[in-house]
Amino acid sequence: MRQIDLNCDLGESFGNYKCGMDEEVLPFITSANVACGFHASDPLVMQQTVSAARENHVRVGAHPGFQDLVGFGRRAMSLPAKEITAIVEYQIGALNAFCAANKIKLQHVKPHGALYNMAVRDEVIAQAICEGIAAVDPDLILLAPAGSEMILAAERLGLAAAKEVFADRAYEEDGSLVSRSKPGAMITDEASAIRRVLQIVQKGTVTAITGKEIEVEADSVCVHGDSPSALAFVKQIHLSLVQEGILLAPMSQVISAPTE
Amino acid sequence: MRQIDLNCDLGESFGNYKCGMDEEVLPFITSANVACGFHASDPLVMQQTVSAARENHVRVGAHPGFQDLVGFGRRAMSLPAKEITAIVEYQIGALNAFCAANKIKLQHVKPHGALYNMAVRDEVIAQAICEGIAAVDPDLILLAPAGSEMILAAERLGLAAAKEVFADRAYEEDGSLVSRSKPGAMITDEASAIRRVLQIVQKGTVTAITGKEIEVEADSVCVHGDSPSALAFVKQIHLSLVQEGILLAPMSQVISAPTE
Amino acid sequence: MRQIDLNCDLGESFGNYKCGMDEEVLPFITSANVACGFHASDPLVMQQTVSAARENHVRVGAHPGFQDLVGFGRRAMSLPAKEITAIVEYQIGALNAFCAANKIKLQHVKPHGALYNMAVRDEVIAQAICEGIAAVDPDLILLAPAGSEMILAAERLGLAAAKEVFADRAYEEDGSLVSRSKPGAMITDEASAIRRVLQIVQKGTVTAITGKEIEVEADSVCVHGDSPSALAFVKQIHLSLVQEGILLAPMSQVISAPTE
Amino acid sequence: MRQIDLNCDLGESFGNYKCGMDEEVLPFITSANVACGFHASDPLVMQQTVSAARENHVRVGAHPGFQDLVGFGRRAMSLPAKEITAIVEYQIGALNAFCAANKIKLQHVKPHGALYNMAVRDEVIAQAICEGIAAVDPDLILLAPAGSEMILAAERLGLAAAKEVFADRAYEEDGSLVSRSKPGAMITDEASAIRRVLQIVQKGTVTAITGKEIEVEADSVCVHGDSPSALAFVKQIHLSLVQEGILLAPMSQVISAPTE
Repeated sequence: MRQIDLNCDLGESFGNYKCGMDEEVLPFITSANVACGFHASDPLVMQQTVSAARENHVRVGAHPGFQDLVGFGRRAMSLPAKEITAIVEYQIGALNAFCAANKIKLQHVKPHGALYNMAVRDEVIAQAICEGIAAVDPDLILLAPAGSEMILAAERLGLAAAKEVFADRAYEEDGSLVSRSKPGAMITDEASAIRRVLQIVQKGTVTAITGKEIEVEADSVCVHGDSPSALAFVKQIHLSLVQEGILLAPMSQVISAPTE
Repeated sequence: MRQIDLNCDLGESFGNYKCGMDEEVLPFITSANVACGFHASDPLVMQQTVSAARENHVRVGAHPGFQDLVGFGRRAMSLPAKEITAIVEYQIGALNAFCAANKIKLQHVKPHGALYNMAVRDEVIAQAICEGIAAVDPDLILLAPAGSEMILAAERLGLAAAKEVFADRAYEEDGSLVSRSKPGAMITDEASAIRRVLQIVQKGTVTAITGKEIEVEADSVCVHGDSPSALAFVKQIHLSLVQEGILLAPMSQVISAPTE
Repeated sequence: MRQIDLNCDLGESFGNYKCGMDEEVLPFITSANVACGFHASDPLVMQQTVSAARENHVRVGAHPGFQDLVGFGRRAMSLPAKEITAIVEYQIGALNAFCAANKIKLQHVKPHGALYNMAVRDEVIAQAICEGIAAVDPDLILLAPAGSEMILAAERLGLAAAKEVFADRAYEEDGSLVSRSKPGAMITDEASAIRRVLQIVQKGTVTAITGKEIEVEADSVCVHGDSPSALAFVKQIHLSLVQEGILLAPMSQVISAPTE
Repeated sequence: MRQIDLNCDLGESFGNYKCGMDEEVLPFITSANVACGFHASDPLVMQQTVSAARENHVRVGAHPGFQDLVGFGRRAMSLPAKEITAIVEYQIGALNAFCAANKIKLQHVKPHGALYNMAVRDEVIAQAICEGIAAVDPDLILLAPAGSEMILAAERLGLAAAKEVFADRAYEEDGSLVSRSKPGAMITDEASAIRRVLQIVQKGTVTAITGKEIEVEADSVCVHGDSPSALAFVKQIHLSLVQEGILLAPMSQVISAPTE
């Protein structure tokens, strides 16, 4: 039986500022990337988010980002490698405290925003992130796109990795994402996005923006929960996968399943 | 053989801002209270501080404070109890990551600044702090003054506690510290301060500001490492204790030693 | 012709976090209290808020608060008086830059949240705030409740002051607000709230929670724009005042009108 | 009579963290670049720094940087142009409040750290900075290196500009600074540095790292006050200039002096 994980960024509220539809999206996903207070969230939001994830049997991952609240961690910053390692360790540890308080085990780490985007292509940053993960807990899973420098760094360090795809993004022939600045980068038609996800999960392929069908590895599909339409899409993709007989399971289970 | 712990706040530098004499004071203390990024420190400083403590065989504790960098955590803030629990959990977890990365075990938690001062007297705050500690790791030791609400809260929750005294502070007859606003609150004469510490450790008593000799419990003596004179005092107190045949040991060992 | 100002907190969004219904509420108010980046807002939000206020012919005031983003400035903090003066000066100056860039003149200053609440009753804090206002620009108007320590401090310093009332709050016989912890503190019935405002503006009196009609001074009514129901109330109060032939005017005009 | 300004970064302390030797360096400089709370400083430090500058008859400029306290504004960040304009406006305004409170006029603006370095070469960033300056007060002077994009942007906007040179840096033949990563980038010999400054001021030339003598425009020399050796150098350069009959004057005076 084929399996796939659905991962979603959660716990991005901050103090008086509420954002996201965490409670609504939790029943439909299997893994949550929980913000750790650097680009979003605060200790109380983290406590509540981990608690809500546990109640929904959703596995928890750390979602570390740059220390840039006003920019939501989306602005590129140039940090020395050892400082990237340190901010990743700090944020994993902080979230881990709430996992311990909720008596669950942290499952994975997915970098956020600009840190994620830079680490896809930059070997030094990717290595710094994975060293931070391995130093805190070598049993943690890195969640990153197939073919990225992050996946390579995880392999070098013996860290388990789960590969993620994006339901709403077009792909180049080399398996990389089409830049958002190009036309056609975003898959805005919901039915088309769902057909693409099913093809990825069932056939292991996706149709690149050039029209060519390319192979793609996917342990997890990244979805969003920050708007009513995003929520509706998550529900629909969840339903479509189940209807096709695909098992929704956290990435720790997906990557340890025997390959056919 | 009598034992005592010497604890000192460490790792209070922040980014470009250096403070304290951590490297110099580490050889003379047995436990370090390491700032966790809320009132002082940053991930890189925490990494370096934990690493330096391990190299000096100094046990590491978390030193959580209010999120108030500009005020160094010294300004009273009114937070709901559940938020105090959450900020304590967050900071313990963050420091714990660097302990894991350095392959050491976190020993204790000592609240910082205004949070400490408020928790000495406020049952609700003391309880909120101890609940945070117990939730993250019930094997952690609370470090607080004898007779404080924190010690009572730790006892209620079954948390181990170490009691600390201050070498440079005068005591009231009831065992509380003389307010800094009163004359005679600070023991500025070094020889006198050392005699007082020896009396506390050897006889279990201290001469209150009224002249009356009162009983005082001490597992640890709080010292400072933020100036050359503070450092000189730490060296002197270390030497005096050793000369008197008193064993300097981390609080985890002191509190588990068989009582005579 | 009677005049009254309607003031509302605005510009409380922060980075990726949107809050408030600024664009919707602006057509119905006459003065905006604009957050200055310490408890809410950021430079870009401030620029946009001042620009939007100018387009709506709404006068702009600074809304300085404690430096506590995660607590939205609502948590009491104990700062030395000279630091309160400095944070007030800093925030007024920061907002003033956007007024200059938009070629308008800053009208007033209204402290925010915990700073406001503390300054109502605390003479030292009230004085520190008013000294900051006077130092930056002695032509600025302080906006505060009648009978507060802030109004007294403004009078001592020769600073113009506008007195505000709250449409949704009950009053004690001495003119102070009924504590939110007491039953009846909030006026939740919209029609009742509007009748109260009309009585305040037309008769200069309000019915205290005890039933006694007391005198109350009002140059401005504080309204809210942070929810659809709050917005509906602002529209209704605006309409009711206009229907009664009361002129809606910024506080600078209201306080300089010849008294009958 | 030839004139030159000596400018120095000041007011970089933050809360409990002290740095720099502001009081010692003030008697020897003519313009101070005062940190504005984003990369360093806080409202109280700003108040004290502006007050100390005024007492020493040193003119005050704003030193705006990226909002990155832990990185001291030295880390490149990618911000949209309109946000750069807004953070520059905000910081100028904030400092301006302390100038008003001290009854002095803000003289100039010099971007800090990574923002400065990026704006030297990046036209969009340079334009965004200068638009922010001009919007708040078109009489402010931009302080930047000759030949930089900032100087070009100031000229486009009709903003007065003062050109600065660095006593401790080597120059390429094109007048740009030799990258710090190259050998010989820093002029470490004090006597040599002073000879270079005198040559710049008296002859308008500097010997490039290639040995070629190139023309260089200088209204101000950037010096440092963050260490005893830096302070000693400032004193020596001050003395050498005076001995050579060169007038030390704030940049506002230097740039408005009649050219020969």
